[in-house]
Amino acid sequence: MARPAPLSGFPEWLPADRVVERAVLDRLARTFELHGFVNVETRAVEPLEQLVSKGETSKEVYVLRRLQEDPDQEGQAARLGLHFDLTVPLARYVVENAGRLPFPFRRYQIQKVWRGERPQDGRFREFTQADIDVVGQGALPFHHEVELPLVMAEALTDLRSLGVPPVRVRVNNRRVMEGFSRGVGLEDVEAVLRAVDKLDKVGPDVVGELLRTQAGANPAQAAAMLELAGLTGSDETVVDRVGELAARHGATGDLLSQGLEELGALVAAAAARMPGVVHADLKIARGLDYYTGSVYETLLVGHESLGSVCSGGRYDTLATDGSTTYPGVGLSIGVSRLVSRLLGSGATVATRQVPSAVLVAVLDEGSRSVSDAVAGRLRARGVPCEVAPSAAKLGKQIRHADRRGIPFVWFPGEPDQVKDIRSGEQVDADASTWSPPQEDTWPRAVPGDVG
Amino acid sequence: MARPAPLSGFPEWLPADRVVERAVLDRLARTFELHGFVNVETRAVEPLEQLVSKGETSKEVYVLRRLQEDPDQEGQAARLGLHFDLTVPLARYVVENAGRLPFPFRRYQIQKVWRGERPQDGRFREFTQADIDVVGQGALPFHHEVELPLVMAEALTDLRSLGVPPVRVRVNNRRVMEGFSRGVGLEDVEAVLRAVDKLDKVGPDVVGELLRTQAGANPAQAAAMLELAGLTGSDETVVDRVGELAARHGATGDLLSQGLEELGALVAAAAARMPGVVHADLKIARGLDYYTGSVYETLLVGHESLGSVCSGGRYDTLATDGSTTYPGVGLSIGVSRLVSRLLGSGATVATRQVPSAVLVAVLDEGSRSVSDAVAGRLRARGVPCEVAPSAAKLGKQIRHADRRGIPFVWFPGEPDQVKDIRSGEQVDADASTWSPPQEDTWPRAVPGDVG
Repeated sequence: MARPAPLSGFPEWLPADRVVERAVLDRLARTFELHGFVNVETRAVEPLEQLVSKGETSKEVYVLRRLQEDPDQEGQAARLGLHFDLTVPLARYVVENAGRLPFPFRRYQIQKVWRGERPQDGRFREFTQADIDVVGQGALPFHHEVELPLVMAEALTDLRSLGVPPVRVRVNNRRVMEGFSRGVGLEDVEAVLRAVDKLDKVGPDVVGELLRTQAGANPAQAAAMLELAGLTGSDETVVDRVGELAARHGATGDLLSQGLEELGALVAAAAARMPGVVHADLKIARGLDYYTGSVYETLLVGHESLGSVCSGGRYDTLATDGSTTYPGVGLSIGVSRLVSRLLGSGATVATRQVPSAVLVAVLDEGSRSVSDAVAGRLRARGVPCEVAPSAAKLGKQIRHADRRGIPFVWFPGEPDQVKDIRSGEQVDADASTWSPPQEDTWPRAVPGDVG
Repeated sequence: MARPAPLSGFPEWLPADRVVERAVLDRLARTFELHGFVNVETRAVEPLEQLVSKGETSKEVYVLRRLQEDPDQEGQAARLGLHFDLTVPLARYVVENAGRLPFPFRRYQIQKVWRGERPQDGRFREFTQADIDVVGQGALPFHHEVELPLVMAEALTDLRSLGVPPVRVRVNNRRVMEGFSRGVGLEDVEAVLRAVDKLDKVGPDVVGELLRTQAGANPAQAAAMLELAGLTGSDETVVDRVGELAARHGATGDLLSQGLEELGALVAAAAARMPGVVHADLKIARGLDYYTGSVYETLLVGHESLGSVCSGGRYDTLATDGSTTYPGVGLSIGVSRLVSRLLGSGATVATRQVPSAVLVAVLDEGSRSVSDAVAGRLRARGVPCEVAPSAAKLGKQIRHADRRGIPFVWFPGEPDQVKDIRSGEQVDADASTWSPPQEDTWPRAVPGDVG
């Protein structure tokens, strides 16, 4: 084949970059499991009708067709599409397996998702998401709405040792938004949310215009919504300020009260457990999603232009099988977007591209089995290594190790010797006892020389 | 939604079964990395023209179409299909990134692949493969053909502690097959290989008939091929027997000599390093694949009916960019098939379905933060735990832990206490120092109560 060009929207990593991605994924998984989340993988496909029933994202679905499909049969089998998120598959998996899952079902899922974007849009068409959700059977207590953003904040904060910047989780509550909106007389809540959702991108003037033209707001109503959307704070006083604003505009009602109580509880618990990380931010609307309670977005401090790297919220009806309703709360990390930024900015780098800590030299092809035996003894004690591909001159074998980033070269002999090719230090060694320093044993992801 | 039915050919695991699958994958990855194989993931899609140029499997490709695709644009963008193996993507990745990869490129790759089988065929349409390959730039020494099946044998043997049966690797060499075939006057080597490949399934009578009708063999030629295909052995004497058989039929030539030398070297090295695991088996043909040297298949002892769980071989031309040729040798484990058999036969089971080793009880909702703090202290020392979802009666909380398979329940108090709900033993404990026994800390995959 001629040298192929990368396919726009389908990112792939070189080996060293994959080391960084795996370090991120491994640490996320560990945090999720420390919090008792079960790992699940679902198939890549769902029936197309399930996918297209879920709002605007349906525009971006990839539909599958068997190359050898008999056109007569096409109509018989359900048409399949690639999942565009991990929430639709979760809902289906929960209903399909309800009798065999432990509820509340705490699951995490790390998989690729696909979006059939137009090729010229430059967006990811394949990317990795890492999701956590708690799903209840019939009911799901509010305290999970406090728990889940804190698990994500802990997971992302745990990545700081890899060079990931600190995060700021911005939270809001749909009940507050809806209660306030209806309280000031705006009944098309969906249009209100869609308008407010654009505040970061287009600014208050345009949002005010949208509120008037799309949501039927008069100037006073639009101003009230913008005033609400401007409120932010990391302790319970923000809730008092929302309450005062609502009172000033005559907005009252159970929905608003419940929303304010929940938002206050979330902010207070977060301030106690992870001070300074979680902020109430009344402009967070998550316009297109079917959330019913808390909503969340997460920014990387210093990389706010990247947008939210971790978003989610509460669904009162994640799924239903007709008789039982499954409420859920969850968040999703856009791992590819995060890793892409870490690599592109140099915030995180790999210590080397290959797993091998040691290259075992081969003195001549006739004694390759001696080198293989050395490698076997090192591996038996957990030291990753490879044997030189050819019995070239030793200088050439050392350069081979250097090009691969392997820190140590082993020379079989009497006695064996091992050389740290970075320092040049060479010492007698026994493959049954010698180990590299712990930080050299495996490739690691570490902060780069930036910032 | 109504309760959905599973989608034929798209296996999904319940949480406990996923524990088993992950244990298999984690251990495979560890062995591959101890041998210096670099992890890579490639995108799920390749240009359709790349996929369909690769032989019979092209019949089973899933083609992608954007739901909102403009029919006028359809012809402009390259059509994409889901990869049906990890070899075609590797070849493309190597050529695309040749200047940035360390050669010989030792890579492993664990990903889903898709085959557009007819739904009614009952075959997997989505499954996980675990591949290792070594790819050279221009040349690749023969010793890698010895190394790679031994890495796989080691990786699969390492799974025995999970309950995986012992494996038998069956090896052959295309040069022997082709040299012998031509030596006895059969020039349509491909037809010969295709016929011999069916020996295990249909027996010698049918294969003899196929050799006569499809490969143009006379009865003596067919008998000679069947005699060859009947030879097997785990030491170099099998090579001598092939040599004698060839001499008896007047089959000679450099190709046959080189093949016999390679097969002998492979069997001898394998017998020295992993006695009894690798057997030369002259009927192994891998009929449909483009191998040029060693070929490999792997059976689970006692589960021979499952067919090969790990196959591969040597390609002299894995890829080429016109000026440089990339030879490779590799093997691929059909992980889904293996795991499906482990689960179905009860050979491997999970010790529990959830990660949590401890359920921290909640005495009343007002003191949930006390339980959260206990959980935080346990997690900080690497103990996975979850907090009870409601402040129910303690007996109910214990039953909740029991249903999830969580072995310990923690009761905040003065002092705190922890109960092993299997033995009923309850002791004073401090969340800053207590740990569960190591075998209880994380869910594990262990041999089941069979065989």
